Amino acid sequence: MASLHFVYSVSTRTVAEVESELSPSTIHGADLRFHGVVRNLEEGCPISGIDYSHYESMALNELRRIGESMAGDFPEHQALVHHVVGFVPAGEASLLIRVQTTHSASAFEISREYLRRIKLTVPVWKKPVFEEDSPVPSP
Amino acid sequence: MASLHFVYSVSTRTVAEVESELSPSTIHGADLRFHGVVRNLEEGCPISGIDYSHYESMALNELRRIGESMAGDFPEHQALVHHVVGFVPAGEASLLIRVQTTHSASAFEISREYLRRIKLTVPVWKKPVFEEDSPVPSP
Repeated sequence: MASLHFVYSVSTRTVAEVESELSPSTIHGADLRFHGVVRNLEEGCPISGIDYSHYESMALNELRRIGESMAGDFPEHQALVHHVVGFVPAGEASLLIRVQTTHSASAFEISREYLRRIKLTVPVWKKPVFEEDSPVPSP
Repeated sequence: MASLHFVYSVSTRTVAEVESELSPSTIHGADLRFHGVVRNLEEGCPISGIDYSHYESMALNELRRIGESMAGDFPEHQALVHHVVGFVPAGEASLLIRVQTTHSASAFEISREYLRRIKLTVPVWKKPVFEEDSPVPSP
């Protein structure tokens, strides 16, 4: 899903795949990419990964709403958000937030604020897959 | 140049090359990558890119010093800094700052602080190459 300044998606595509298709910009001096990575421990117990599920229409609506409110709050930026659903093995990213700004200072603040709003309201659920479980096969 | 928690380099290698070799981590939930990108305008005039030069021993010493002081100020992180020297065309990155932290909140603050310190003290000079000039060939 895309607008001129905000692109967002929730799918089984990996962050690496999405990132490999990002095009460069000659007008933005800062290109900041936050990867939310699955760790190998959940509450101290070893896990092989996390199985993410979502309520699609709500998740996309919420991302769109966040993009609109961020465009109002921080007019001078472009952003892309991708959340992976399905099984994500430990060490791989489940979330990508890319923020491009003309100058660098604001990119950090804007990315952090995307992350805060996404964590707060986007309905994506996490089910840790413990090492003794069979991992859910990645589609 | 490397330590357990801080890797830094200044060379003609592109940010894309350096980034393609980054290995994943299963203990850091946040992996933040700042790209400082060459824009196509310098003081309003179109440029084809920037030719970066540096005083090698001073630049590396200064990066090492920044890494040491950052490790003291923010003990819980890993970082990599790469600055490209030579000609960097508009739209490509000349600086990569990668910061990994266990949890996400601190990654933004730490990256921003690396950028601030690097800009303040690392001796790398910029010569814009205007569109009418012949670009300096990239090695």
